[in-house]
Amino acid sequence: MVQHTPRGFRVHTASAGLSDDGRDDLTIVVSETPAVACAMFTKSRFAGPSVVLSREAVADFSARGFVVLARNANVATGKLGMENAVEVRRRVAQAVGLSDQELLIAATGVIGVQFPMDSVRAALDELQWPFDGNDFDAAAHSIMTTDTKAKVISLKCGDASLVGIAKGVGMLEPNMATMLTFFCTDADIPQPELDRVFRSVIARTFNAVSIDTDTSTSDTAAIFANGQAGPVDVDEFERVLYDAALRLVREIARDGEGATKLIEVHVSGARDDDQAKRVGKTVVNSPLVKTAVHGSDPNWGRVAMAIGKCQDDLDIVPERVRIGFGDLDVYPDLPDEDAMARLVEHLEGDTVQINIDLGIADGGFTVYGCDLTEGYVRLNSEYTT
Amino acid sequence: MVQHTPRGFRVHTASAGLSDDGRDDLTIVVSETPAVACAMFTKSRFAGPSVVLSREAVADFSARGFVVLARNANVATGKLGMENAVEVRRRVAQAVGLSDQELLIAATGVIGVQFPMDSVRAALDELQWPFDGNDFDAAAHSIMTTDTKAKVISLKCGDASLVGIAKGVGMLEPNMATMLTFFCTDADIPQPELDRVFRSVIARTFNAVSIDTDTSTSDTAAIFANGQAGPVDVDEFERVLYDAALRLVREIARDGEGATKLIEVHVSGARDDDQAKRVGKTVVNSPLVKTAVHGSDPNWGRVAMAIGKCQDDLDIVPERVRIGFGDLDVYPDLPDEDAMARLVEHLEGDTVQINIDLGIADGGFTVYGCDLTEGYVRLNSEYTT
Repeated sequence: MVQHTPRGFRVHTASAGLSDDGRDDLTIVVSETPAVACAMFTKSRFAGPSVVLSREAVADFSARGFVVLARNANVATGKLGMENAVEVRRRVAQAVGLSDQELLIAATGVIGVQFPMDSVRAALDELQWPFDGNDFDAAAHSIMTTDTKAKVISLKCGDASLVGIAKGVGMLEPNMATMLTFFCTDADIPQPELDRVFRSVIARTFNAVSIDTDTSTSDTAAIFANGQAGPVDVDEFERVLYDAALRLVREIARDGEGATKLIEVHVSGARDDDQAKRVGKTVVNSPLVKTAVHGSDPNWGRVAMAIGKCQDDLDIVPERVRIGFGDLDVYPDLPDEDAMARLVEHLEGDTVQINIDLGIADGGFTVYGCDLTEGYVRLNSEYTT
Repeated sequence: MVQHTPRGFRVHTASAGLSDDGRDDLTIVVSETPAVACAMFTKSRFAGPSVVLSREAVADFSARGFVVLARNANVATGKLGMENAVEVRRRVAQAVGLSDQELLIAATGVIGVQFPMDSVRAALDELQWPFDGNDFDAAAHSIMTTDTKAKVISLKCGDASLVGIAKGVGMLEPNMATMLTFFCTDADIPQPELDRVFRSVIARTFNAVSIDTDTSTSDTAAIFANGQAGPVDVDEFERVLYDAALRLVREIARDGEGATKLIEVHVSGARDDDQAKRVGKTVVNSPLVKTAVHGSDPNWGRVAMAIGKCQDDLDIVPERVRIGFGDLDVYPDLPDEDAMARLVEHLEGDTVQINIDLGIADGGFTVYGCDLTEGYVRLNSEYTT
C-alpha cells in the first residue's frame, strides 16, 4: 500500500485487451507539471521499439510520464511493431496534451506477437485528461505479467515523497535497468544530480539482481521528479532512493518464477567492486548453487566451484578464499556437527545469505537472486512468454 | 560396446570404497610401451590437486596412462587432499613400474570431502602388473558419477584403433576440456601433430557442450598414442577423432542431468567462429530456451531474447538475423499454421536443432546442450555433488 504519494502525478490504468482475462494491462502515469527524468534501458541486441522510442525521449530530457503495456513485449515484431508503438505513444501524448518526446513507453510480455491494436485503440479512446486518480497501487498491479505480487514502495524524504513500482519475475538479469521499474517523486532535484544519484542506485540494486541470467529485451528503469515539494537534501534523497530500490529488488528476487527463497551473496575482500560483482553474479546464477539452496543442502563445494568459474581472475586462489552461510563459516574451516545443524536451519529459512571473502583487497558487492525450483521449470515449459 | 581395442593398453577397474554401493570407482589405464600424450584441463580457479599434478605430468610429455577416482573430486581439500592425490598416483606408478610423471590422475564427484584413504589404500594393495584385461567398457562404467549411461566409442583409422571414454552429466560447461574424457590409440603419431589435432578436435566438441553453465573443477581431456599399429594418415586420424569425440559429446548432452532432449544450436553468418560460438552458447545455456524446448513450445522469441544477450556484439541487429528450428524458418518470416504444426513435431523429437544466421559474414559454430527439466532440479536439490 502506498502511504506517501508524491504530489502532481496522475495515474490511469485500464484493460487494453492484451490477453483474455480482462485484467488491467495499460498503465499511464503523467506529471501535471514539467519534471526532470532519467532512465536506463536494456542493452539487449533485440531491444524492442518501446526501448528505442524511450531512449530518444530520455536523451531529450523532457520526459514527464510513461505508458506501459503488459503481457506483450512488442519485440521482434518488425516495422509494424514500431508503427504500433509510435501510434500508442502519440495517442496517449495527444490525450494528455504533451508532445511524443515527453512520454516514455514500455512493453513487457510475450515476444514476437503484434499488439491487438483494435482493443488497444478502444482503450485509448477512453482517455480523459486529467486522469481521476493517483493510485500507484493500481499501477503496480497493472504492469504485472507472471508476477505473483505487485511490487510497490513509498518513502518520505524531508517534505517530499517517493513512490516506486516494479515488475519482473523471469527473463531477468538486468544490465543497466530491470524489467520495468518506475519512480516518481515530488522532490525538486536538478537533472544532473538526479542522473548521478539514479545511476549509482540502479548499479547497486536493479543491476545486482538475477533470476535466471536471461536479460530481457525490454528492461527499463526510470525516475521522474516534478519538484512540487521543493528542494531536498540530495544525500538523503540518495539514501531513500537506495532503500526504496533495494526493497523492490528483494521483492523481485523473492518473487522470482517458482522461487521459494531469496539468496543474497555478499562478496568482500575483492580486488575491486567489479570483481566482487562478477564473483557474486557467478555464484547467484549457478544452477547447482540455486538447486542446493532449494534443497537446503549446505553444499558449499558448489559455491567453491562457482567462484572457480571466474577463470580470468587469476588473483583468486583457493588458499585465500573464505566461504560462509549466514553467520557461519564453512571454508576453509569446515563446520562441526553442531554448526552443520545450524547451517541447515539457516538454509531452511526464506532468506539465504552466502558470504565470500576473496582475501585480495577491499572491494565488495552484494547481489540478489533466488533458488531454482521445479516450479520454475514447470512455469516456463508450459507458458509462452 | 568396444569393437576396436587399441593394442598395448591395459585396463584395471576396482572398488576403492568412494561410496557405499560397492560399485567400481577406481580406473587405471596404462600403455605397456611408451606413448605420446596430450591433455587439456579445466581453467577453474578452484581446480583440485589432480588437475595440478596432471598438468605437470603433461608438461613433461612422457605420460602413458591415467588413474581416475570417481564420486569424490578431491577439490577444496587443502594440504591433506594434495598429499592424498600424490600418494594415490605414486602407489599406482610403483605398482605398474612407472615414474609418477608418467601418469595422469583425475578425480570427479563431491567437492570438499577427503578421500576415504583406508579403502583406497586397500584397493591399491591389490594392484598386480600387468593388469589382466583391456576392457574399456568397464573403464567407461567405473568413471561414472551421476551418469545414467556409460559413454564409450571405438573407431578404426587405417590399421590403428581409437577408443574414447567420457563421463559427465552436470556441473558441465567445459572450457579447455570436459569433465573427464580419455582417448587411447595404437596409432603412431608424432607428439606435435597429436597435440595440434587434439586441440582442434576438443575445441569443436568437448568445448562446445554445456549442460548447465557450471564449469567443473575437475575437467580433464587426454589422449594417449603408443604407436603399436604404425603410422596413420593424420588428416584421416583427425576426422576419426572428431567423429569419436562428437559422438561422445552428443551422448553427454543427451544424458545431461534430468535431460530428455539433445539441443544442437547451429550458428552461421557470424563475424567469425568465436562470435558464432558465443551466440550459440548464450542460446543453449538460456534457461528460458531450455525450458521451452522441454515443453516442446516453439517459442522462438526466447531464442531472439538469448541472441540479444550478446550485448557487446554491436554488429548483431534484429533486421539481419534469421532463426529456424530443424528445416523450418520462424523469423523474420513467421511460420503459418501448417509449418507451426511441423515445428511442434520437431520440438517433440529427441533432438532439437536451432539454426541461427546472423547475416554478418561467414563465421560458424555448433554447440550442444540439453533441455532443463524438473528432473534436473530434483536431482540437484536432493543430491550432494
